[in-house]
Amino acid sequence: MPANGTSEILKSKRSSWNVQISEFARSTRNLIREVVEGVKLEPNPEKPMIPLSIGDPTTFGNLKAAKETIEAVRKSIENRKHDGYGPAVGSEEARRAVAKYSFHQGHVSPNDVILCSGCSTSLDMAICALADRGQNILIPRPGFSLYQTLAVSYGVEVRWYNLLPERQWEIDLEQLESLIDEDTAAVIVNNPNNPCGSVYTREHLKKILDLAEKYYLPIIADEIYEHFTFPGTQHTALSTLSENVPILSCGGLTKRFLVPGWRMGWIIVHDRNNVFAEVRKGLAKLATRSLGPNTIIQASLPVILEKTPQSFFKSTTNFIYRNAVLAYDLLKDVRGIKPIMPNGAMYMMVGIDTDNFPEYPTEMLFVQDLVREQSVFCLPGTCFFYPNYFRIVLTVPEDLLREACIRIADFCENHYKLDKRVIENGGLQAVDLQ
Amino acid sequence: MPANGTSEILKSKRSSWNVQISEFARSTRNLIREVVEGVKLEPNPEKPMIPLSIGDPTTFGNLKAAKETIEAVRKSIENRKHDGYGPAVGSEEARRAVAKYSFHQGHVSPNDVILCSGCSTSLDMAICALADRGQNILIPRPGFSLYQTLAVSYGVEVRWYNLLPERQWEIDLEQLESLIDEDTAAVIVNNPNNPCGSVYTREHLKKILDLAEKYYLPIIADEIYEHFTFPGTQHTALSTLSENVPILSCGGLTKRFLVPGWRMGWIIVHDRNNVFAEVRKGLAKLATRSLGPNTIIQASLPVILEKTPQSFFKSTTNFIYRNAVLAYDLLKDVRGIKPIMPNGAMYMMVGIDTDNFPEYPTEMLFVQDLVREQSVFCLPGTCFFYPNYFRIVLTVPEDLLREACIRIADFCENHYKLDKRVIENGGLQAVDLQ
Repeated sequence: MPANGTSEILKSKRSSWNVQISEFARSTRNLIREVVEGVKLEPNPEKPMIPLSIGDPTTFGNLKAAKETIEAVRKSIENRKHDGYGPAVGSEEARRAVAKYSFHQGHVSPNDVILCSGCSTSLDMAICALADRGQNILIPRPGFSLYQTLAVSYGVEVRWYNLLPERQWEIDLEQLESLIDEDTAAVIVNNPNNPCGSVYTREHLKKILDLAEKYYLPIIADEIYEHFTFPGTQHTALSTLSENVPILSCGGLTKRFLVPGWRMGWIIVHDRNNVFAEVRKGLAKLATRSLGPNTIIQASLPVILEKTPQSFFKSTTNFIYRNAVLAYDLLKDVRGIKPIMPNGAMYMMVGIDTDNFPEYPTEMLFVQDLVREQSVFCLPGTCFFYPNYFRIVLTVPEDLLREACIRIADFCENHYKLDKRVIENGGLQAVDLQ
Repeated sequence: MPANGTSEILKSKRSSWNVQISEFARSTRNLIREVVEGVKLEPNPEKPMIPLSIGDPTTFGNLKAAKETIEAVRKSIENRKHDGYGPAVGSEEARRAVAKYSFHQGHVSPNDVILCSGCSTSLDMAICALADRGQNILIPRPGFSLYQTLAVSYGVEVRWYNLLPERQWEIDLEQLESLIDEDTAAVIVNNPNNPCGSVYTREHLKKILDLAEKYYLPIIADEIYEHFTFPGTQHTALSTLSENVPILSCGGLTKRFLVPGWRMGWIIVHDRNNVFAEVRKGLAKLATRSLGPNTIIQASLPVILEKTPQSFFKSTTNFIYRNAVLAYDLLKDVRGIKPIMPNGAMYMMVGIDTDNFPEYPTEMLFVQDLVREQSVFCLPGTCFFYPNYFRIVLTVPEDLLREACIRIADFCENHYKLDKRVIENGGLQAVDLQ
């Protein structure tokens, strides 16, 4: 068609409005959403819905930010001095406040702190800075699915290391080691852990560090739940035990201060032996893409971090702990399921012995029918790359949690069948072993 | 060394802590910072420094957010309902408010709006969604350097189309067309424009759309300065003229409401003929990486957008206009330089006839000596891929701008030399032609 002009045809593959999206956008997959969309959520109209699925402690209104936290922001907005652009890595004052607040992580200077738009962005920047296209990072299973979401779009492969439910979700270090190759760029360690609620001992953390040191692997420590531990459990920041392993610790206001919507996160650079000089520069460069988090919240950080009282934090963790005990007690003797008591964070994983629920070959179907019959929704373990479990959130009001657990118990009782293998073996002694 | 274990050596290229950063982070370059770091900033100690370089209208305190804007945020923080996570694309209420506010862009529904952490992030998401590794996008020269910063790290090539100073910085459409090939993914159109302050006519915008339509090229319209126009000039949103070209319009509170630190930006999807279905999904996926902008500001958007009075906006643009006239009048007859009167935004470009300043073979050296002698700092055109110009910011207090322009004039007068070529030709008639 010479009339149409050959040059135009050469210039474009497109002869219509057929707009494609980039591989980056396409590969940014939200596993939880995809899984949940695959579950038919049709609650029993006779029972009010109780969602134990939402990892936002503020959802039910029973947990709220401290008045000191709110007051700090009110003052910042009123004093009219914090509306302009701040430095991309965050203001000096705010970074100094985070450094001071993070003394439990060892020596931290303001220059070691980069403020980010929520801890999600902290993780995004940390993964992006450390791992290159074609490399791989090691992430926990069960684990927070965002690690995969973020990594894969950068062309970074994720490899799952296993957490062991029978050992309070400690890392299977041997299996982790087997995953390492010359293209392994970093290990992500989430402690306290979502979805397990596990808190690692110093001894276990030391072993993780030994392995990282052996292979010269930097660690991304997702420590957003760092102060969420139950009585008798102490959280140890990975950085305090590291002699040589460089660490990027990701944290923020989100969970502890009960303000997830405020999007105030940070990365703390724990450089050992000055091996992260390039990484610091890289993070600073990445920060210039979005120019830092909201300046009003930044300006409030010094007061928020200093003035929010210990009693507030204690009240939150005590509440979650009591809920954990409540749920554990209500579920531990239910046939066919097995809750694993957490030591921190705000979640509990519950195992399903699918052999005892032949109606439900997968935990997805189990969870779906639990909604249909009992109007209780828990996230299926598949959301965390870990089938045959479901996760319950422990921040809901106590009466709702109690009611939900009773309904879960009813549901299990109604659907529990003796394991076929046990029946065939003619005995009961193997039941409930799990 | 068998004692060390061959398998470990095979497992890692690293035999020491030599931590590299990713190509993504490495290639996130901040041109302005790099250029400015190359300029020796040694002000004259006898003259107070006047920076005409900072694109933050709030820097000097003469321009401040409206009390209605501040009051809206104060109420949101006090009512304690907006601390939890919001939807990744922004709350329904906030998106509805932006849709209503954007009626001048044509029909916009809440589903066409994605809230982002500042307009930088809007641009980042728009570029990321539309352009794939190995493709190219077309960006203006002179132009805002962030477009390049963002694109290059995604492996997207940038190609510069020229703006023509002699035609009020209109696009050289012929040259733009020559850049298009089968891998061109999108065109970025910045109107009103940074650094030029140009505002395109409807006729010019129509020609841009015709070209985009001819090659089926989507447009990213950076319209962050959409309401910054001077008396007698009308801004036309690109979307209102488009019949078939799909457009992502990037905007936000930043400039108009004088709150750049708040990081509230948005993308408005102007889909024509439903060709952006995948792009909408892609943008929603990208939003899940950071979970949206600060929820307190989101919750305030309906009131901010509705209640901030027109008189406030008018006062800001009138102030900038008066400053533009002032600067233009003070500089237009200065020998060796040529200011180009803007029609909007908050900048003015000033051309340097380097032939008249043989001491300064580049505008970088000109700008550097202007700091050293006169303590006035303007960004060199190289920051915008456009040498032999410098940009001045028009939001500084009037007396400072006047003083700065007088000093610039003095500087030029002190260093102006007759063009060697003119002298050699034995005449003066060619001087000041530019």
